[in-house]
Amino acid sequence: MKKLGDVVVVAPDSPQSGMGHAITIGETLRLYEEDIFEDVVAFKSSGTPADCVKLAKHHVLKERKPDLVVSGINHGSNTSISVLYSGTMSAAIEGALEGYPSIGFSLCDYSSKAEFDHLEEYVYKICKQVLDHGMAKGVALNVNFPPKRNESIRGIKICRQAHAKWQEVFEERFDPNGRNYFWMAGNFVNFDKGEDNDEWAIANNYVSIVPCQYDLTAHHAISQMNQDWNWEMF
Amino acid sequence: MKKLGDVVVVAPDSPQSGMGHAITIGETLRLYEEDIFEDVVAFKSSGTPADCVKLAKHHVLKERKPDLVVSGINHGSNTSISVLYSGTMSAAIEGALEGYPSIGFSLCDYSSKAEFDHLEEYVYKICKQVLDHGMAKGVALNVNFPPKRNESIRGIKICRQAHAKWQEVFEERFDPNGRNYFWMAGNFVNFDKGEDNDEWAIANNYVSIVPCQYDLTAHHAISQMNQDWNWEMF
Repeated sequence: MKKLGDVVVVAPDSPQSGMGHAITIGETLRLYEEDIFEDVVAFKSSGTPADCVKLAKHHVLKERKPDLVVSGINHGSNTSISVLYSGTMSAAIEGALEGYPSIGFSLCDYSSKAEFDHLEEYVYKICKQVLDHGMAKGVALNVNFPPKRNESIRGIKICRQAHAKWQEVFEERFDPNGRNYFWMAGNFVNFDKGEDNDEWAIANNYVSIVPCQYDLTAHHAISQMNQDWNWEMF
Repeated sequence: MKKLGDVVVVAPDSPQSGMGHAITIGETLRLYEEDIFEDVVAFKSSGTPADCVKLAKHHVLKERKPDLVVSGINHGSNTSISVLYSGTMSAAIEGALEGYPSIGFSLCDYSSKAEFDHLEEYVYKICKQVLDHGMAKGVALNVNFPPKRNESIRGIKICRQAHAKWQEVFEERFDPNGRNYFWMAGNFVNFDKGEDNDEWAIANNYVSIVPCQYDLTAHHAISQMNQDWNWEMF
């Protein structure tokens, strides 16, 4: 990011896997400046990824408007339905809500030895395109990179979110006091046969970019509900 | 709900305001049966609202398929953009993801003295409509009730999500050790001039029902990005 402009970091002070679009309500937030990167103003916060964007806007940047909000690189996939559970993407969507061009980056590799170096040119290129072309109002990009394979990355695909889900498995265990507890684990199940979605792109060694928005309205369902349902009981 | 069928409750053991679609990753979950309602099987969990739906499906109900997933009534509004931050609605969306007809209910009244009794017939009516008509695949209903006013509720409106946002204010304070901390507060700002949205419905004393879905793809942005942007650098 330093090649593109002045960088200000506001990051959570602990892992935020599965944090979704959670925000901190009814509890206090901490925010401390940290001297960790050269030529970069950096803060750490006790809040969620979405909190960090709000703190950056209202407390750190105040009147200064960022040219770009970037979240990640997340260590692990945020393709398909994972966008709902993703703290990384919720920060990007929070940025879009504020009217800023916003991008969430993720690497589809959960290995502790995952390599990130080869992504640098792609991150730069994608950010540059967004800075040059702007972004449609209310849209944030969900960018996922394939894991490092023998073949180099084949290119970039603009995609829709694949139709897929997590199939959870709960493993029951007992603590030293004999009380039970659960570990949640999940298997990703892809129902999507199309080739225009992010799962297909990653499987075929492309970078996937899904433009995302935050209007959850199922517009197609409105007229049907108005037509078929009976609301006249009262 | 007991008028409509057999009820199984799986609820978080603590307040979940602003929890969004968070799930518990890398930490254990607790789940205990509680004898709190007559003729109702009830569990409490240390997890988030979305976790509770997953636990209900995979551990509590196992092979039994629910006819309806109901979340709430939330004490406070989940209209418009608040759907993103809402644990109540994330539980309903999680239900829709699993293929169950799902509804999140909220009362647009933050008062500790908020009255819920007058909503019972509406909750019953809306659930009955969903059981009778079924729900479009992948759709969950976001139902909001107006606060109790002198005039009685005027009816039910099927709506789209209003275009609005929270404008945060961070109040900085200092703890007894002199370290700073923040309270986040927010003002709701409604940009929407339309009359087909949930904010309009609530302001005009209607019950609002927004059908919601979980495909965040900004489909309208895909062709534009394919047309205008240059991805051919590599």
